[in-house]
Amino acid sequence: MNFKIYLPQKKLKSYYKSAIAEYDKRLSRYCKIKLIQSKDNTQITKYLNEKSYLIQIDPKGKSYTSEEFANKIQNLANASISDIEIIIGEVEDYPIEILPKEVIALSPLSLNLELETTLLYEQIYRAYRILNNQPYHK
Amino acid sequence: MNFKIYLPQKKLKSYYKSAIAEYDKRLSRYCKIKLIQSKDNTQITKYLNEKSYLIQIDPKGKSYTSEEFANKIQNLANASISDIEIIIGEVEDYPIEILPKEVIALSPLSLNLELETTLLYEQIYRAYRILNNQPYHK
Repeated sequence: MNFKIYLPQKKLKSYYKSAIAEYDKRLSRYCKIKLIQSKDNTQITKYLNEKSYLIQIDPKGKSYTSEEFANKIQNLANASISDIEIIIGEVEDYPIEILPKEVIALSPLSLNLELETTLLYEQIYRAYRILNNQPYHK
Repeated sequence: MNFKIYLPQKKLKSYYKSAIAEYDKRLSRYCKIKLIQSKDNTQITKYLNEKSYLIQIDPKGKSYTSEEFANKIQNLANASISDIEIIIGEVEDYPIEILPKEVIALSPLSLNLELETTLLYEQIYRAYRILNNQPYHK
């Protein structure tokens, strides 16, 4: 699976950058994952791939447990979907032309977007450990 | 308000430690907050204060939005509660004598406990910014 994560923020605090780099490294054996940072999200439609399964992260979206989220990734792979694109940030901050296939809440709490990105990476890593019946490494 | 956060893990990864230290610094103007780390949670009853409002964090707990969580802290303060103790980790990992006043889910996703602690600090900081009508600093 190829993941592209869109974050409307150019700079990351060093500790979130390090956390994301760590999960990125661990994920390299399971998937391709790329973080795309932009100054804002008004230009995002230029970058999106029409064939991808587009997910928007928003606190008002659908909730998943970690097992359900892992199964979601597996079901998309089973349906021959090879690209998942995920946009971080609240729905109302994006151009109205964007029609995600699904809106997912990582938490009903409003989160700092960098923390939310870290959490997303951690859950994708956790998902692959679950799907491969491997213990989760803290 | 005085917060004590119990984390059943002695070592923290450097990036989560730095993130928590940053929120800890920001929170110093609003409350007292202390992170108490122990090797495991079997001895936790020794440390808990009976007069505190005890919250357990667990993915199966009650969900809050950030505004609701902020109001929760305000309502406890209004009810003359001066101490909130929060235990991180799943309910089944704690001795059965522990009877939290409330079980709260920061997310229905299972999270790395260090990441969950970071998220909790971020939400307490966000709560005080909301309660004081101050903008949230990323």
